[in-house]
Amino acid sequence: MTVKLEDVAELAGVSKTTVSRVLNNRGYISEQTRKKVHEAMEELHYSPNAVARQLFKKETKLVGLIFPSVDNPFFGELAAELEKRLFKQGFKVLIGNSMNDPEKEKAYLKELIGNQVDGLIVGAHNYNIDEYKVTNLPIVAIDRIINDDIPIIASDNYQGGKLATELLISKGAKNIIVTDGPLDFQTPAHNRRIAYESVMKKNKLIPKSFIIDFNWNLDKKIKEIKRMFKTYPNMDAVFATNDADAALIWRIAKRMNIKVPEELKIVGYDRATSTRILLPELTSIEQPVEEMASLAVKTLIKRIKGEKTVPKQIVPVTLWKGESV
Amino acid sequence: MTVKLEDVAELAGVSKTTVSRVLNNRGYISEQTRKKVHEAMEELHYSPNAVARQLFKKETKLVGLIFPSVDNPFFGELAAELEKRLFKQGFKVLIGNSMNDPEKEKAYLKELIGNQVDGLIVGAHNYNIDEYKVTNLPIVAIDRIINDDIPIIASDNYQGGKLATELLISKGAKNIIVTDGPLDFQTPAHNRRIAYESVMKKNKLIPKSFIIDFNWNLDKKIKEIKRMFKTYPNMDAVFATNDADAALIWRIAKRMNIKVPEELKIVGYDRATSTRILLPELTSIEQPVEEMASLAVKTLIKRIKGEKTVPKQIVPVTLWKGESV
Repeated sequence: MTVKLEDVAELAGVSKTTVSRVLNNRGYISEQTRKKVHEAMEELHYSPNAVARQLFKKETKLVGLIFPSVDNPFFGELAAELEKRLFKQGFKVLIGNSMNDPEKEKAYLKELIGNQVDGLIVGAHNYNIDEYKVTNLPIVAIDRIINDDIPIIASDNYQGGKLATELLISKGAKNIIVTDGPLDFQTPAHNRRIAYESVMKKNKLIPKSFIIDFNWNLDKKIKEIKRMFKTYPNMDAVFATNDADAALIWRIAKRMNIKVPEELKIVGYDRATSTRILLPELTSIEQPVEEMASLAVKTLIKRIKGEKTVPKQIVPVTLWKGESV
Repeated sequence: MTVKLEDVAELAGVSKTTVSRVLNNRGYISEQTRKKVHEAMEELHYSPNAVARQLFKKETKLVGLIFPSVDNPFFGELAAELEKRLFKQGFKVLIGNSMNDPEKEKAYLKELIGNQVDGLIVGAHNYNIDEYKVTNLPIVAIDRIINDDIPIIASDNYQGGKLATELLISKGAKNIIVTDGPLDFQTPAHNRRIAYESVMKKNKLIPKSFIIDFNWNLDKKIKEIKRMFKTYPNMDAVFATNDADAALIWRIAKRMNIKVPEELKIVGYDRATSTRILLPELTSIEQPVEEMASLAVKTLIKRIKGEKTVPKQIVPVTLWKGESV
């Protein structure tokens, strides 16, 4: 049976308004009252989100997605898989592409809250966005750290980085470069690089990373990859932390008459459906998109219902052996 | 100066309610009254959409997109480009993936109308959906025929089919197969096949088409493509009407030790960014996604404002010479 807001108020011996003030940090509340309300909520296994929702809004059966861009094989597929599952659960999807622009992400967040979505699934990469802290909305993050209250679904980035680096070393590569997005984004995806560094050091090899920002356009990326080839003339392998970068590196190597995998080995990351179709030859770490989507939807629905969720759910990745290593 | 609803009512000599009833086909209206209202609207160059909007709803600054799936490089990129432009114009985007399921498309359409979007951009492929006929919403269709009232933005499918087929013939191919989606979808994309058939006949060659339904999953597509190779053992070229199918055909040919382009020439269609990155070797007809998105947004905004739009806007395509022909 669903516990009601009244039950929290009754157990704490305060009014409903006071409970809502505690939940929303509005108006003056003494520490003692705050404590009483929190204790009552805990005793009743009550989630602030569910309570706040009951008070302030009705169900809209809309879920907002905020992603860097659906024009990226991985996020496009993820958005489609989420949408498919949410539709089956009776939810429609509002989608915003943040293009990794914090201002745009804020604007979408404000808009989605204003449109009274029932919940949010966020896979964008900006952080330090205050709006996430003040909203009572149920949120699930995919491969991204927002704050301690928001559950994360991620694939095993560390294991992926380890698998990729160990494979390259086992095939004789020594000068292995890792490409990574900008370091100032707080994302669990950095664990791919961290695992690479750890495996390199364990094998007495020197880790070297090269930044390829996912916000850059195609021309800028090509220019930077050419610079990478110049900067590291002795490199014999690249672990690219996404397939698009891996494909570009392969393409540029081809133009420079560098043979893959004989002279340069390449491992990518993601293996979205379009990569599987367009470039199955690429050796890559496969993220289980469907499983991640399924977990994200299940977790969001739990949050919406006010049920408890675990803070972190990590799903395993697998190595796809193509022809680039 | 904007003509107001009152002006229509005044000129027709009826009440505002009567005008709205005529526009929405609600309540009893005599044929004579209906005629008077329509004449007044025509005289004032008035769009029913704009009038209806003025009466019944306020601006929500939301635009709905209905696409087969963003998990398709072309539609993913198109959705991203539309979203980028709409965002600049102050609109947020609600997106629905119809997965080519008419029931799902209807559900989304109903939901989007219910959420009072200011307009719709539709690129899904289902037809005969009555909901499009009854809504007063401004709608723009991309590469799709909905009804005579809804403007279409399309790339020059006929020219694309012509370019592809002429290229294949000029390189010596004779047994050229075209792949096409199911014929019962009313889409201008069929003009690719129609152009192929015309060029083939002009060159005294026999046109043959093979259905690859975009709704099929990967396994089913692979199975059918294998069947195509068996059905046409003498084929020396394929014109695939999308890049994903072209890539699959190439991949299967490779496994069968059929050399591309020596023994089999392949032309694809679309050239979305992910194809450009992952498979630049594929010879393909490039659709100008950005231009199509730009025209669609401009046209939709005109419709929302009640301005006149042209029924059809066709943008040119270009041939990308890769290595598969």
